[in-house]
Amino acid sequence: MQIQVLSPPLVYAMMGSSRDLAVGTVAVASLLTASMLGNEVNANENPKLYLHLAFTATFFAGVFQASLGLLRLGFIVDFLSHATIVGFMAGAATVVCLQQLKGILGLDHFTHATDLVSVMRSVFTQTHQWRWESAVLGCCFLFFLLIARYLSKRRPKFFWISAMGPLTSVVLGSLLVYLTHAERHGVQVIGHLKKGLNPPSFGDLVFVSPHLTTAIKTGIITGVIALAEGIAVGRSFAMFKNYHIDGNTEMIAIGTMNIVGSCTSCYLTTGPFSRSAVNFNAGCKTAVSNIVMALTVMVTLLFLTPLFHYTPLVVLSSIIISAMLGLIDYEAAIHLWNVDKFDFIVCISAYVGVVFGSVEMGLVIAVAISLLRVLLFVARPRTFILGNISNSIVYRNVEQYPNASTVPGVLILEIEAPIYFANSNYLRERISRWIDEEEDKLKSSLETSLQYVILDMGAVGNIDTSGISMFEEVKKITDRRGLKLVLANPGSEVIKKLNKSKFIEKIGQEWIFLTVGEAVTACNFMLHTCKPNSMKHDQSDAYNNV
Amino acid sequence: MQIQVLSPPLVYAMMGSSRDLAVGTVAVASLLTASMLGNEVNANENPKLYLHLAFTATFFAGVFQASLGLLRLGFIVDFLSHATIVGFMAGAATVVCLQQLKGILGLDHFTHATDLVSVMRSVFTQTHQWRWESAVLGCCFLFFLLIARYLSKRRPKFFWISAMGPLTSVVLGSLLVYLTHAERHGVQVIGHLKKGLNPPSFGDLVFVSPHLTTAIKTGIITGVIALAEGIAVGRSFAMFKNYHIDGNTEMIAIGTMNIVGSCTSCYLTTGPFSRSAVNFNAGCKTAVSNIVMALTVMVTLLFLTPLFHYTPLVVLSSIIISAMLGLIDYEAAIHLWNVDKFDFIVCISAYVGVVFGSVEMGLVIAVAISLLRVLLFVARPRTFILGNISNSIVYRNVEQYPNASTVPGVLILEIEAPIYFANSNYLRERISRWIDEEEDKLKSSLETSLQYVILDMGAVGNIDTSGISMFEEVKKITDRRGLKLVLANPGSEVIKKLNKSKFIEKIGQEWIFLTVGEAVTACNFMLHTCKPNSMKHDQSDAYNNV
Repeated sequence: MQIQVLSPPLVYAMMGSSRDLAVGTVAVASLLTASMLGNEVNANENPKLYLHLAFTATFFAGVFQASLGLLRLGFIVDFLSHATIVGFMAGAATVVCLQQLKGILGLDHFTHATDLVSVMRSVFTQTHQWRWESAVLGCCFLFFLLIARYLSKRRPKFFWISAMGPLTSVVLGSLLVYLTHAERHGVQVIGHLKKGLNPPSFGDLVFVSPHLTTAIKTGIITGVIALAEGIAVGRSFAMFKNYHIDGNTEMIAIGTMNIVGSCTSCYLTTGPFSRSAVNFNAGCKTAVSNIVMALTVMVTLLFLTPLFHYTPLVVLSSIIISAMLGLIDYEAAIHLWNVDKFDFIVCISAYVGVVFGSVEMGLVIAVAISLLRVLLFVARPRTFILGNISNSIVYRNVEQYPNASTVPGVLILEIEAPIYFANSNYLRERISRWIDEEEDKLKSSLETSLQYVILDMGAVGNIDTSGISMFEEVKKITDRRGLKLVLANPGSEVIKKLNKSKFIEKIGQEWIFLTVGEAVTACNFMLHTCKPNSMKHDQSDAYNNV
Repeated sequence: MQIQVLSPPLVYAMMGSSRDLAVGTVAVASLLTASMLGNEVNANENPKLYLHLAFTATFFAGVFQASLGLLRLGFIVDFLSHATIVGFMAGAATVVCLQQLKGILGLDHFTHATDLVSVMRSVFTQTHQWRWESAVLGCCFLFFLLIARYLSKRRPKFFWISAMGPLTSVVLGSLLVYLTHAERHGVQVIGHLKKGLNPPSFGDLVFVSPHLTTAIKTGIITGVIALAEGIAVGRSFAMFKNYHIDGNTEMIAIGTMNIVGSCTSCYLTTGPFSRSAVNFNAGCKTAVSNIVMALTVMVTLLFLTPLFHYTPLVVLSSIIISAMLGLIDYEAAIHLWNVDKFDFIVCISAYVGVVFGSVEMGLVIAVAISLLRVLLFVARPRTFILGNISNSIVYRNVEQYPNASTVPGVLILEIEAPIYFANSNYLRERISRWIDEEEDKLKSSLETSLQYVILDMGAVGNIDTSGISMFEEVKKITDRRGLKLVLANPGSEVIKKLNKSKFIEKIGQEWIFLTVGEAVTACNFMLHTCKPNSMKHDQSDAYNNV
């Protein structure tokens, strides 16, 4: 069955926010649709019902995608990080190149799987089927296209060489085959294409039992997968060209184009990577390229199909491979390695996941690792000892600023994350260990004993009830050792919750300061005039409005 | 088959870190073991193999649990927050109380499910089976136990009344039944108990195919569930009594006790909630209670079983219910509501999940919601405009401190979270919106135009490559508008990565300051002497060591 995609690109061009996304079908979604509907209806026995169910599933996929967008769930797109996308793109490009081995080697049968292992097995179990004519032709055209791109890159004014490359290849290839009759010597050609456009299919949608639930289920599952691919691809190119994609707009656009598509004999479409990459490489700059594409396809289908009769498949493969190679951004990966090792791991996982597993597996692995990092940041926050930068009232991390000096008798700690259940146990133990270490150090150096513990809360954005319990326990620990707990610079959210839970009363309103500097001044004053806890002082104007 | 648990409590008493955990079997794990092994071996046809497989599964569960501990994965315990545990405990207590309806109403058949709906259906479909004698007896004992506990709470010196309550009830109940022969009038009694101890079972472990994989699978799945329950219960009581549980020690202890248990005819054990609660209510203070329990059980099994012949089941139910009611900590839930609405939602979800679903469902829902909160904090960080607190060089959030005044021509923004892929898009748009709003405000008030944007990075603990791209984009936005981007107080980790990615060079080393105050001073100096970008200044001693 020949699938033509005309209406979705037009819809996307009007509604979408990506300038580079080229609309079309994707293999994963197609295979899933086929297998899920195949369980319900036999495509050979009842092809018409099968086709109608596919349209219905597309309709529901569109409705589901659009409603995700309308419900403002576009923020899930943010969870695809820069590193994920670099890895995903390189992986997807590798996979698409591997698929082209079919065309280059002139194979008739090829695996439907996309992973490296399956493809390699498929290629090397058919060595006797390889066609050298096809391979030579493919390599020549690939070489020509790569040279053209290299020239354009070196001399920007020759950009048209690169842009003309694919068309030239197609014309040259077709002529060559026509003149030499290479199609009889193992070079596969496109052959006969059916002329004409698809009819409208609105009346064909099946909204009645018993197949409705299957259609809905297929629609939702394939819809999510198509959406993930479409948005990941759109975002990839947006990153390349430095513009922004709005997740909600994107979901609504993709959803609407599928709803319209389902009424005009199209099945599930999204922004497939290979098609968008060819578009991008050809120098398309806006979504109008989709309109041009749709119109060109229409004209071609109506009038020009005979011209492609002799176009060798191997030329198409070469064009795709040359486009893909430009998308493996190894420089970005090196940059990730230099700047942030963790991001590099995310990138490589996405690549390995896509190449050895599938597109979704790569995305899921990379997103899971990225999330793990966020959780780890919150679960194991860093704490620092602060010291005074000489000739100022500024207190900073003594590890970062080696010339910052600690204040005798006062331990100043900074907590660098919100205090949540996930880190409250850890923080309590970390703080009590800091106190232990400081006391040991002071004891061995025979200096003044530790009297005050100041917690700098400037970076503590929020706190939950586990965090408040943690503070209560820290208060007990300091009380037991005869130390005074002092808080500096708590945020509005934190102070509100500490107040509600009566922790402020326990610690004493007068022991909460606006800055670490003020807290240290107060502690020093107390240290030099009297023992802690024996009297109260009233140096607290600024924090009454805290 | 009568299961006796002797060796595991002894092992736990030596290795565990909880003082209140009472070791025993749990219903969920028992049911799972039965159903998973039942698929492989029919318990009625081949009871011996079935039993041996159960021991083998227990062995693997123990190995798996202990290895989690040895691999230092105990931190996963931290993901059970205070709020989760309050809800989980109340839910588990409710579920256990519901199960006692069987004993109180004297029912013979009862559902194995633990959720409210199944239990209520089971109770109300058997109204004709209810025994009023049993119910009256149960209510009397329950009333007696509650009065005893109430008295002990009011007058702490009468604590022994509460502690003696259960034993008194058992003795009284047994005597009553013995004298009135109530067992013939619908009051169920324990009846005949088999004397003697279980034999060792080391030789019975099945380490050969074909059943090995089933045993391993069953062991891992039930092991995880038992571990989750045991640790959640241990942590609950630790929170109640304000001490700390080490997740790794706990996992190793529970794992070892199962390995030993599997060699002494015990199947999967953990710290069941009901048993631990009875222990806790009886006033047990250390893990030695497990040794006492094991020895008492041993002596009882060897010599005292005949004495329990006439003990009515309803008395046992009353004891359990009275223990459970003490664990529904509604005051803690009210406290959560007052202090932190989100924690309250987590607590209620855990409760509802446990009561209407299952123990695991409650835990999973509560942990998922808690994690979502952490992710939301990172995904949607707050940004503030800072203003100068009069008569100081301190800059604070103008919303929190209404008397803080903004500096003309300078916009100071604080970012309150690490800058990661999950928030970099959001932050870029938020920052550019702040700049828009500020420019509009200044335009309408005809004051000096905006010239500088200072980003206070004090609370930005870390950054990834997506975050760095975000900064590069913000730099482009400010450049386009003729504004100068200035960074204040970046942390060591952030400065390192900005340096590696050459962003520091782009922004200019001299535009990075130690404090917001210094940054504002420099900006003001430039504002009043010349236009930005027309000259460089060299007020940068402090940050050369940044």
